[in-house]
Amino acid sequence: MRAYPTEERATVMQKQFSGSSETRQEELAAPDGRYVVGVDIGGTNLRLALADTAGVVLAKWSTKTVGIHDANAIVALIRDGVDQLLKQTSIPRSSLLAIGAGVAGVTDVDAGVVLATSYLLGWRNIPLRDMLELALGIPAALDNDVNLGALGESWAGAAKGARDFVFLGIGTGVGAGIMLNGRIFHGMSWAAGEIGYMLVPGVREERVERGKPGPLERLIGGEGIKEEWHGLWRKEQTLLPQDLTATEIFDYAVGGEQLAQVILLQCARTLANAIYNVSLMLNCPLFVLGGTVGMHPALCDSTRSVLLGRDLRVQPQLSCSSLGADAQLAGAICLALDTAAVQSRITS
Amino acid sequence: MRAYPTEERATVMQKQFSGSSETRQEELAAPDGRYVVGVDIGGTNLRLALADTAGVVLAKWSTKTVGIHDANAIVALIRDGVDQLLKQTSIPRSSLLAIGAGVAGVTDVDAGVVLATSYLLGWRNIPLRDMLELALGIPAALDNDVNLGALGESWAGAAKGARDFVFLGIGTGVGAGIMLNGRIFHGMSWAAGEIGYMLVPGVREERVERGKPGPLERLIGGEGIKEEWHGLWRKEQTLLPQDLTATEIFDYAVGGEQLAQVILLQCARTLANAIYNVSLMLNCPLFVLGGTVGMHPALCDSTRSVLLGRDLRVQPQLSCSSLGADAQLAGAICLALDTAAVQSRITS
Repeated sequence: MRAYPTEERATVMQKQFSGSSETRQEELAAPDGRYVVGVDIGGTNLRLALADTAGVVLAKWSTKTVGIHDANAIVALIRDGVDQLLKQTSIPRSSLLAIGAGVAGVTDVDAGVVLATSYLLGWRNIPLRDMLELALGIPAALDNDVNLGALGESWAGAAKGARDFVFLGIGTGVGAGIMLNGRIFHGMSWAAGEIGYMLVPGVREERVERGKPGPLERLIGGEGIKEEWHGLWRKEQTLLPQDLTATEIFDYAVGGEQLAQVILLQCARTLANAIYNVSLMLNCPLFVLGGTVGMHPALCDSTRSVLLGRDLRVQPQLSCSSLGADAQLAGAICLALDTAAVQSRITS
Repeated sequence: MRAYPTEERATVMQKQFSGSSETRQEELAAPDGRYVVGVDIGGTNLRLALADTAGVVLAKWSTKTVGIHDANAIVALIRDGVDQLLKQTSIPRSSLLAIGAGVAGVTDVDAGVVLATSYLLGWRNIPLRDMLELALGIPAALDNDVNLGALGESWAGAAKGARDFVFLGIGTGVGAGIMLNGRIFHGMSWAAGEIGYMLVPGVREERVERGKPGPLERLIGGEGIKEEWHGLWRKEQTLLPQDLTATEIFDYAVGGEQLAQVILLQCARTLANAIYNVSLMLNCPLFVLGGTVGMHPALCDSTRSVLLGRDLRVQPQLSCSSLGADAQLAGAICLALDTAAVQSRITS
């Protein structure tokens, strides 16, 4: 049912998301004086953006959510954020058409219910769509945040115009948003793309426990990479400290540090195996790497090299996310615009 | 575009395919005196079936194709086979509506072209649909044989009525037919489901060579299992011969032979890993195991046990193919019936 954005809208959007200013009045006039809100509900951060119907972001707002588990409290924060955005932009509440929200969890898009999130929020069966509609008085729509990352990249990012591709969100966790025939593929119970648990050569083949990182996450997720470095670190082998983040390790690898290169290569080989498996299964030509870890250019380059050496028949294109941390938020705006478009068709 | 069979047609079909007679006149009257032909073009065998528009098979015909590589020669054999089938059943040629053919290779369904097969046929870019239409004077349609196995099982077999499932064909080679939302998923370049190359724990991570078995095939394909047994075999450890087929090894494992059980368990663990990976990716609730190796009940049972011990959240249902060696042929008949239905809508 999703309306596809015009080429023009996507271009404006991309320009907007490449900018660095967090809150600014856009020079372009809003096409019709109507607006939508996109929300990204992560485990530790809540981010909002207000956009016009051309997809141009006018203002952003964010807050920490560490320690806040109650869904009502999150909805109250979202309402506060929307108030702030309207105030900043002097836009009347009556001009808001819809809100789209991405959640780091398994989400029943049809029912508008968050089925399960990680321990950070700890949600089970939260009717978030109804809660948002009640709190804001506008139509709302939900999806998993990695799925919205894929939607954002297909709308205004590295996968613009691609009808078949996979967005890999690699941060602390690892997940895939799968776009098939121009639509997000959700799976039978809304859990498609859970590749953080994939079993590839080199992972630990132990029983998977709920709430624990998956076998693939342990090797290529942010925390997993830190732990691998910690375990590999020997003071006689490196001048680097034992505590480094994944991206710091990658930076040192690029600089020529040998132990850091061991970690980067292990990570690239594991990621290449996962991408290869998905590519075999879906015959998918494009993978967009997002998330703080996934977007590091050294990881993308090394993974590409591993794939090149493996199988010349199966050579998916790898691209870094061009929207970066904003991919999910862009997808949420796209979802809100689609929701507004559907609503307008229903009411007209 | 595919027309879905009625429940009734599927039931008759299932009954037919459970029977053992190779050629017999069906007691049921043909609903409208019109017929279709299904063809399964394997690497070493060519199999044909003539069915009425209710899906009831009236006669079958098969021949060996070892050493025959020329597509024209295969088409001539198919024409001979159709002649035989018509003669056996005293059906006039003018009653044939369409032919559906499954090929063990990557097949462009839209163009009706076989893009590539294994070395057994050695085909590249063969316009088989046009060749069949020219030879037989009726509409033809093609698909990959494992895809047609999935279609057959969804129509009249173990996945009847399932809209999302994966058919795993495990014989000498290993491939998957993926049904999503009630339709075969083909991928961008018609190569979806090539899981014989999947990289799971335990496989050899070496460069993949064209025409060689894939890493997963080496562990769970028929030839691979034979080789594993051959390598593991020690005369002081077993009374069994060094040369056994995969299914013989599984039979001995069921009988309590310890070395055979080692092979069965390795195979089950590897297959469970592959199924787990696909299930994570597609969030797919049902896997149907087909092919001579895949259909062995001991493999299905052992694989199910491994999955149960791994991750309680991800528990796809495993079923043995109920059509067995006829799954691909059933799918080819289903494809022919759909082709006839589309043709009838076009001409009416």
